[in-house]
Parts: sequence; C-alpha cells; structure tokens
Amino acid sequence: MSEDALDAASLPRMDDIVSLCARRGFIWQSSEIYGGINGFWDYGPLGVELKNNLKALWWQKVVRERDDVEGIDSSIIAHPRTWEASGHVEHFSDPLVDCRACKKRMRADQLDDAGPCPARQGSSEHDWTPARNFNLMLKTFVGAQEDQAAVAFLRAETCQSIFLDFKRVRESARQKIPFGIAQIGKAFRNEINPRNFTFRSREFEQAELEFFVHPSEREQWFEHWLEQRVAFHRALGFGDDRLRVRPHRPDELAHYAKAAADIEFRFPFGWQEIEGVHDRGDWDLRRHGEFSGKELAVTDEDTKERYVPMVIETSVGVDRTCLALLCNAYEEEKLPDGETRTVLRLPFAVAPIQVAVLPLSKKLAEPAERLVRDLRRRFAVFYDEAGNIGRRYRRQDEVGTPLCVTVDFETEADGKVTVRERDSMQQERVPVDGVRGHLQDRLEGSR
Amino acid sequence: MSEDALDAASLPRMDDIVSLCARRGFIWQSSEIYGGINGFWDYGPLGVELKNNLKALWWQKVVRERDDVEGIDSSIIAHPRTWEASGHVEHFSDPLVDCRACKKRMRADQLDDAGPCPARQGSSEHDWTPARNFNLMLKTFVGAQEDQAAVAFLRAETCQSIFLDFKRVRESARQKIPFGIAQIGKAFRNEINPRNFTFRSREFEQAELEFFVHPSEREQWFEHWLEQRVAFHRALGFGDDRLRVRPHRPDELAHYAKAAADIEFRFPFGWQEIEGVHDRGDWDLRRHGEFSGKELAVTDEDTKERYVPMVIETSVGVDRTCLALLCNAYEEEKLPDGETRTVLRLPFAVAPIQVAVLPLSKKLAEPAERLVRDLRRRFAVFYDEAGNIGRRYRRQDEVGTPLCVTVDFETEADGKVTVRERDSMQQERVPVDGVRGHLQDRLEGSR
Repeated sequence: MSEDALDAASLPRMDDIVSLCARRGFIWQSSEIYGGINGFWDYGPLGVELKNNLKALWWQKVVRERDDVEGIDSSIIAHPRTWEASGHVEHFSDPLVDCRACKKRMRADQLDDAGPCPARQGSSEHDWTPARNFNLMLKTFVGAQEDQAAVAFLRAETCQSIFLDFKRVRESARQKIPFGIAQIGKAFRNEINPRNFTFRSREFEQAELEFFVHPSEREQWFEHWLEQRVAFHRALGFGDDRLRVRPHRPDELAHYAKAAADIEFRFPFGWQEIEGVHDRGDWDLRRHGEFSGKELAVTDEDTKERYVPMVIETSVGVDRTCLALLCNAYEEEKLPDGETRTVLRLPFAVAPIQVAVLPLSKKLAEPAERLVRDLRRRFAVFYDEAGNIGRRYRRQDEVGTPLCVTVDFETEADGKVTVRERDSMQQERVPVDGVRGHLQDRLEGSR
Repeated sequence: MSEDALDAASLPRMDDIVSLCARRGFIWQSSEIYGGINGFWDYGPLGVELKNNLKALWWQKVVRERDDVEGIDSSIIAHPRTWEASGHVEHFSDPLVDCRACKKRMRADQLDDAGPCPARQGSSEHDWTPARNFNLMLKTFVGAQEDQAAVAFLRAETCQSIFLDFKRVRESARQKIPFGIAQIGKAFRNEINPRNFTFRSREFEQAELEFFVHPSEREQWFEHWLEQRVAFHRALGFGDDRLRVRPHRPDELAHYAKAAADIEFRFPFGWQEIEGVHDRGDWDLRRHGEFSGKELAVTDEDTKERYVPMVIETSVGVDRTCLALLCNAYEEEKLPDGETRTVLRLPFAVAPIQVAVLPLSKKLAEPAERLVRDLRRRFAVFYDEAGNIGRRYRRQDEVGTPLCVTVDFETEADGKVTVRERDSMQQERVPVDGVRGHLQDRLEGSR
C-alpha cells in the first residue's frame, strides 16, 4: 500500500459515525418519525452539549477574551433590501439540471455523483436539460398579506446583519477601527443535493467575525486572523494529517476580495472546507451604504481621514466543525486483551459529558450523589449506577467522556475515589475533595 | 393617590428602557439602516450577553443539574406533517379585520387599540370588514421546486420537535418515565400587530421543557414544575409586586388540557405572561403517533402496563424574560448629593458585564491588564482606561455591572485594589489575589 492509502485506511468510515451518532444521541435526521426531511438534522442530548461547548469556546476566544471584538445576535429575517445590496438576490444561485428520462434533479457541477439513470437500464447516461440558475435563499412572507411587498428571506449567511449593525455597534460600544463584530446563528440555503451527513445541509449554524480595519492594514489583519483560527482548530486536536490551509488562487477570488484561504479538514469523504478567512475589502459596507442611503464610513480622530473600512472575515461552520470533531475523535481501538473498544477522543473542553460518576453498587448512591451535586455547579456530569463497571466505562468511552470517577466500598473509610482516564485507561486513587480541582485543571488546560 | 397608582408610578417608562437599550447596545430594531422591519429585533453587544446568560442559567437549572431531563437542539424547519398533526395548519390563526376606509389591518380582538380612523376626520369609527382567519405560521419552500409538495413552515413553537424526537431520545439516553426533554431555540409567528418592544415579535426565542409522566402522576408533576419555574423567576429578582401566577379558568383550557397557569410579570404596559406551565395530557404524543403511524407509547417494566405518557410543559419566552429583567432592574435613583443616576440592578448571574477593571490612569494599564487576563478565564470582564473615574462608574451602573475594580497608584505598593459595588456604591480595598474568589462567591450566590 502507498503511504497515502495507508493514511486513508486510518480514517473512520462515515457509516460508523452516523450510526454512533443516532444510537447514542448525538445527531439524527429531523422529523424521523415522518420519514425525515432532506437536509435537516436534530442534535440529541449529547450532540447539543458538544455543539454548545464548541460555540462557547469560539465565543470565549473570539469575543470575551478580546477588547476589540463585540458580539451580537441579530434576527434571522432581515429587511429584504439586505439581500439585494449583498448581491444574493441576483447572484446566489446554483446551476441546476433535470434528467428528462428519470426526472432526477442535480447541480450541473456535480453530475459525476448522479449515478446511473434508473429509467435507462444498462446505461449510465442521463438526458440532462440545459442548466438554469436556481436561487438558494429560502423565501417567506412577513405581514398579513402574501404578496410581493411582504417577501422576505431567511438569511443565507449571518454576516450581513453585522454590516447592517456596524454603525450602531461602533457607536454604542464606543469602538474605534480596528475592531470586529461577531455572531453565532442559524442560516439557511436551499441546497439542491444535501449530502455527507451534516456537512452540507439546508439549515446550519455559522460563527462569523467581521473585523473592520484601515485599508493600509488589511494584510496584517488577514494574517493575524488566519493564524488565530488555525490555532483554534489545532487546539481542538486537529493534527497536520487532518487539517490544512488552502489559499485561494487569484482566479478563485471574488472580484472585491484581495485574499482568501480555506481551512480544510480531512473527512472520510475527502478534504473539505470547515472555515473560510476572507479579505472582503470595502464591498459590503459600500453596498449597504449605497442601498440604504446611510454612508457607512468612519473618520480617523487623529488624521481626520474619512474612509470606508475594509473587512477581514472569518466564517466557520459550527455543524461542520462538530462533524470534524466526531470524525477526528472516533477510533476503534484494539486492546492488548484482544478486545476492541470504540472510543471518542474528544478534547475536555468540548466533551458532552466531562465526568461520569459511577458508584460500584447502588448502596453507594448517597456519597456518589453528593459528589455529583458538588461537581454539577461547574461541570457536565453524568450519573450512572446500573450495571457492570467495565460496561459502564465502555459506554462512556464511546461518547467521549474524558474521566470516570468510581465510588467504591473503600471510599467512606479512606475518603478516596478512583479516577479512570479515557485515553490511557489508567486508574488512580485521589481524595474526593480533590476531584473538583483535578477537573478544573483539565478544563483550563484544554482551552 | 391610591396605593395602586403609587405602585404604578414606581414602574419605569418603556420609552426610557427602549432608549437605553438602543443607546448602550442591548437591543434595537433589526435592519435599522433600511428603516427597520416590523416585529424583528437585534441584540447588541450587551443584549447578547444578557440573553446568553439567561439561557445558560435555564439550561443549568432545567437540564444539567438534573438526571431526569435531556436537552436537544432540533431544526427550525421540520416535516410539514408535523404542523398538521399539531393542529397548527388548521387552527393556529388569529381573526383579522380591515378598515374599508383607512385600510388599517387589525386583530379583531384588539380593536380597542386601533385609534381613530385617519380617513374619517373627527370620528373614531372604523368601517371594519367581517373577521376572517389568518394563519400565523411563516411558510417557505424547501427543495428545488416552488410547488405545494415543497411547502414547509418555520416552527411556531419549539416543543413539537420534542414530541417527534421523544422515542429516539428516550432510547438513546436510556431514560424511563418520568423524564423530560428540553430545548432552547427560535420560533416564528406572523403576528398581525407586533408591539410592546420585544414583547410581541415575529421572531423570538423559547426555552421549553416537555416532561413525560404516568397518567396517575400528572398533578404532582404539574405542581412540581410550576413551583420550580416560579422559584427560577424569583431568583432573577422578581418580587411579589412584579410577579404573579394566574391559573387558567376551566373555560380557558384547551380541550385536551387538565390544568394550566401563566406566570405573569408586571411590565410598564401591564401584567403579561412570560411563561406558561401546562398539563397537555397525551394529546401531542397521540396525534403524532396517529399521523406518523409510529405509536408513541411506553411499557412499564414492572407492571407491563402500556400507555401514552402525559405531558407537563413549561414554556418561557426568552426575549420576554430579558425584557422583564431590564424593566425590573431599571431605576433612576436620586442620590443624597441631589444628582440622579440610572442604574440597572441586574443579578450577577445574568449581568452582561460582571466586572469592569478601571485603571485610575493609563500609566496603570499594565497591572490592570494582567488582572483582566486572569479574570477573563471565567468572568465577563470589561476594560476601560479612559476618562473621569466617576463617569466610568456611572457608565457601568447604567448597564448593570455589579462590580468595578479600580487599580490605583497604591496598588503596586500594597497589592490591593478598590472594589466598588453597584447597588450600595460602597467601596472596599481588597487584595488583587482575592478578586477572583470574591467574584466566584458572588456568581455562585446568585445562581
């Protein structure tokens, strides 16, 4: 086998990930009992914690730890002029074709994935119509009349409302250039062929930062943010073999963009973008300035120069990064005793359950529950008193719980519990009072 | 003045709240630069922190501190059959009338608010059409065709997907009755007349719990959850004069409901519901069972009884509770020196800024920034080195920051800083190393 093939063999299979996600309550198809709805996903009890932890970590790093970034949370439905100014009404479309024989509908740039035509046995050749443009924004009607005046769109990206709110945020938060505005929220795209589990879906969550700079400082801020964002993904545990930066070629850039780079993760289905870092120039503020009649420029207090700031954007897919975390963490590990265990090596900071408290017997429920109550003030704690302890450890390995704390019959006498580490499976006895500090160290070390 | 009128005089004016919210960056109208869009609101840098803190507190109390509640995060767009089963397609409508003279459109049950008819000077009499039903769900089209088959709705409440996911959650999380499923998320209603700031808007956020119980335990769980939820609001600082429980009269109950109560807050515009606690019976699980063909029943392991669980629901408006927090906290306080200060007496656990670090001079930036870096690992910290210290205190009072820490020229010598408390305006000198513990105590005390 070539080195590349060897490497590929170490990737998990998507089927295993999808099956674990449904069985253990991370992610499953929305509206399952009605047969599902294509391109929509629900996060279950463990999935919602994983996603919330990831969002909280992003917010902590991008907003709360910095003096130069402000957060917002804007409405999903904005004034329809927003999407005219942004160019989405005119240009946000995919080329679409239909097969005249089997009626299959595909993106014209993805025909390799179409498979054979069921209406023409023995032939892989579809009879495609010419491509036509299909706008990807989801449309709705706001107000008591369903006519053209009331048409609105579900946002196709969260960044546009950041531009609309630029002046209000700058003034209310008394910020000066350079500074940024960040937002996490849902966005919607009517993808023709949603696929690869949650990777390409119709409803998804973005975490975006728009950082506003003086034209002379575009390049240095682009470099700063690209570096910051790569470091963020590295801290999630994505190694060199799974994460890479792909700068855009000049012919890939939007006409207004000066530089752009994709941060790509190697999924089982190939290298794919999980984040984009873009120098968008002054395109967005200029366009919204023109369409609204409200000039979105600033004046430098020292030089009195008046200018429209340039924008450096970082845009990460929250669902995509959750999926990357799951793919990166998943392992079927062969143990020395010949058994195999499934283990999710999730970093402590994003693990849905940070610690499981497991009394060796139901008779030990009382001291175990006391520990649970204490730890729950700060950590995500799971309590399980039923079944064989080995099986309970394996169930926690499978959902990525970094630490299990076992309360046994010695605990009352020596005041100690057994802490078992997920990755090494090493066990050590530590004082009950020390568990909280131990967890705190792990948490701060993994942020 | 009567006691009632005296009491009303102590309520803040909505204009003051709305103005503070826009000026200081809590909340403003969505798409302001395009003239706004009626019924949609953006949360600014301080508003998003307030809302996130409130949501985190709810999640902590309802999900993370309990073994019998699981969280989920489902898609906003679900399979359209969902809304047929729930009764929303048929019944979720308001009666709507138009004035033939001035074209004003109103809810037929709110005509008292219509004001005079501008088309009929000197007369308050509109010429209303008969009422007709107007469905409040926002409609969209999913998939590449804009035809009937592809119609979908933005969810009108977050609870329906909880019912769809009931079986999957119960099995993947290995829960037994009684247990609950909780969710926080956006919902949409095409209100004919959005009003009272964020109180009645078209896009809003709910935090809902559906708790599944055996039919014989409905009443005790209804009481349990009503009590829990009232305690939650009390802990937010809502006193007897601002919070009340209003049980529904039998004739107000839905046909399937056995009991319901509103938790009401006294806004400047009157007593209004911020949360509902409902015994929904087995209506929801039965309907989705019938419409999907998948029976949503459980079997009691001990008695082998097979039954459809009953549902106790708690449903709180996140935006409404944020607004209640702001109204409850707002005060224009007359000080002994004759001055007036605006102060937001927000509880520590939800305050957007928990501590402001203020060096007395820019020369003290270095030790102040060191303190900021340390505190930011766990708290929401604002740093401000510019301007008169008294003015800086007032700016923090106005946005509800519970503590200000001032670094002065003595700090280097004695290792102490001045901690100034928002409500009492008392100042005390404490060791720099003690600030973190001091904040931690405040945080845990306010949860």
